[in-house]
Amino acid sequence: MFTILPVKNGLDNVSGFFCQGVSAGFKPNGKEDVAFIRTDKPCDISAVFTTNVFQAAPIKHYLRYPKGFQTNFILMNAKNANAMTGAEGIKDIETIFENLKIKFPHIENPIMSSTGVIGCRLNVEKLSLAFDKFDFLAKNSHSTASAIMTTDSFKKEICLKVELENGEFFHIAAICKGAGMINPAMATMLCFILTDADIPKVDMDTLLPKAVELSFNAVSVDGDTSTNDTVFLMSNQQSGNYDKEAFREALNLITKELSLMLVKDGEGATKLVAFEVSGAKSIHEAQVAAKALSNSLLVKTALFGEDPNWGRIASTIGASGVTCNEETLVIHYDNVLIYSNTHRSLDAETEKKAAAVMKKDSFKIHCELGVGAFSFTAYGCDLGHEYVKINADYRT
Amino acid sequence: MFTILPVKNGLDNVSGFFCQGVSAGFKPNGKEDVAFIRTDKPCDISAVFTTNVFQAAPIKHYLRYPKGFQTNFILMNAKNANAMTGAEGIKDIETIFENLKIKFPHIENPIMSSTGVIGCRLNVEKLSLAFDKFDFLAKNSHSTASAIMTTDSFKKEICLKVELENGEFFHIAAICKGAGMINPAMATMLCFILTDADIPKVDMDTLLPKAVELSFNAVSVDGDTSTNDTVFLMSNQQSGNYDKEAFREALNLITKELSLMLVKDGEGATKLVAFEVSGAKSIHEAQVAAKALSNSLLVKTALFGEDPNWGRIASTIGASGVTCNEETLVIHYDNVLIYSNTHRSLDAETEKKAAAVMKKDSFKIHCELGVGAFSFTAYGCDLGHEYVKINADYRT
Repeated sequence: MFTILPVKNGLDNVSGFFCQGVSAGFKPNGKEDVAFIRTDKPCDISAVFTTNVFQAAPIKHYLRYPKGFQTNFILMNAKNANAMTGAEGIKDIETIFENLKIKFPHIENPIMSSTGVIGCRLNVEKLSLAFDKFDFLAKNSHSTASAIMTTDSFKKEICLKVELENGEFFHIAAICKGAGMINPAMATMLCFILTDADIPKVDMDTLLPKAVELSFNAVSVDGDTSTNDTVFLMSNQQSGNYDKEAFREALNLITKELSLMLVKDGEGATKLVAFEVSGAKSIHEAQVAAKALSNSLLVKTALFGEDPNWGRIASTIGASGVTCNEETLVIHYDNVLIYSNTHRSLDAETEKKAAAVMKKDSFKIHCELGVGAFSFTAYGCDLGHEYVKINADYRT
Repeated sequence: MFTILPVKNGLDNVSGFFCQGVSAGFKPNGKEDVAFIRTDKPCDISAVFTTNVFQAAPIKHYLRYPKGFQTNFILMNAKNANAMTGAEGIKDIETIFENLKIKFPHIENPIMSSTGVIGCRLNVEKLSLAFDKFDFLAKNSHSTASAIMTTDSFKKEICLKVELENGEFFHIAAICKGAGMINPAMATMLCFILTDADIPKVDMDTLLPKAVELSFNAVSVDGDTSTNDTVFLMSNQQSGNYDKEAFREALNLITKELSLMLVKDGEGATKLVAFEVSGAKSIHEAQVAAKALSNSLLVKTALFGEDPNWGRIASTIGASGVTCNEETLVIHYDNVLIYSNTHRSLDAETEKKAAAVMKKDSFKIHCELGVGAFSFTAYGCDLGHEYVKINADYRT
């Protein structure tokens, strides 16, 4: 038995970690745009990266370290993804760390993590000048979370305290950025998870990908995948306490919660929708149909318009290639039956009820396929005018 | 040798065919919403249908006829797709044709084709009342093309006169509807191609799917596929003239031209973009990458914003799963080199030139992958505020 409690102030709770965000002057509004996370001594790190073949320079730089390496420093920046920058992009990272070493000589196997525009060289000099502003003993989760924001409309921080039966406890905390481009392959999303649990490296390597699969990879804002997505899990084992089941549950909770924040912050999104597909022939087919719904542009605009146009739901499932048929399909919006074989046309009453469900900030669209026993839930948001505005003007 | 000439007035040129659109009162503005195409005597017909498993009732009704059947009547309606309507949907079609037979006793194996909202029963009575307005000897391509329009902002009609070397000639003409939901699998799109060429049925059956693959299936507006898409090719062989190569070329021209009209009419679209991918490892990979570009929401919004943000182009190709790498990739906007291994950052001059290209109504984005010898061109449009507006309010 164990208890999981949310606590405030994100990363600050995790013993032995320090972090801070400062302004290097890249964001025109003077907000934080460069940050660090560091530990007292080098510690274990696990990572899940983008599936995009054009991996950004920071990812390539990370992958040059030997398997099982330890690190004590992550440097983060916003406004420039350092992607599609070739060998120079990696060289820039090396120069940056040479500069950092002057201010902070103890860095070992430092890691960089970047988000922003693709295809521009980093301004190494300007970025390095920000090191003067770093307080390496700071514990400042808020400014760190703020520094990695791009089109995000709110900071994403979370911390859970896990209490074991014997009164021992550990913390697991995370910050995250992402709003646009979030898709089943977790695009343009950076997530830094820190823990002082006494977790073996092998558990980090197995639990992290699984947690990502169930959370970040189940959400969708617009179906695109980026060059920079990264989820890091760092552990310094400093609490000395650990329980695998408790850690798994807390990690899954954190990643799930953050991924819902990403959807909620879908560029210009006004509502969060859970697309549950059940009765599928296989788990794969359940996943394909659920993600087809959360990615469909016509479904997204119908959600924005609060139009109970279930035809678009049915049509999207029909086009997804999964096994299904008109006779066994049943569609609910929350508890409102909106389509079944014997209930095909929307009467005024149902339409009114469905419209009321769609006015909510979050609700569920449930499609029972009736051809098998497998389910999957994907999360998505609507797409409105704000999405177009934000993305048409992104670089300006 | 042969000559292909465009001629005006669409379907009216094809001998032995009659057509007309009238208003049954389904469109609130009193425009045409029910139409017919008929021939003097039953003639050959070929069809390509949607890949959506929820095929609409009119398609199911068509598929009940024996292979190689002949018909002399197609009835069309807009505003109601008669999809997801179960056995009743098919029964409604039968009732409609019983009613039609009273006005026009000569119908043989009649076909229906519908477009509009999914999941509502047809108003059989109201639709049948429109038969009184039909002039079965009319040749009125314009009103027919108008009757099948839904969110289309312009009528789509085309006719080509094919002159053979010996002075003989035949016509091939088409009308088409489609604007939203157009995707590689040719969604919510109806196309009726008529010819008086003396074409053998076997050539109709082989040339039509090929033409559709190269045209309608290469265009994308929003990546969704519908329950009703149909391309019909009808031939009464009445001219007595035929040349396979000439017919193939004319058919390909017509379908290509219509598919570009569909993209141009993408809901709220302001520009038409050809996405050419060359140097791919296989034709399949060229197609996957080109369609990924034409379907990407982030690419579409960058096009709308006229932002030469080639990072989104590169990122989309990288995410598409095709073989490629940063070193051999070369991106052009029309003739402006925008990315190559030795030309990674946009200088002000290039940015200005690229922005000028993007201001055009139509232009090409060319990505050379540099890993093989295969190419494919997909067509797409931008996505702006109008798309959201049209689709959020579709049913109202």
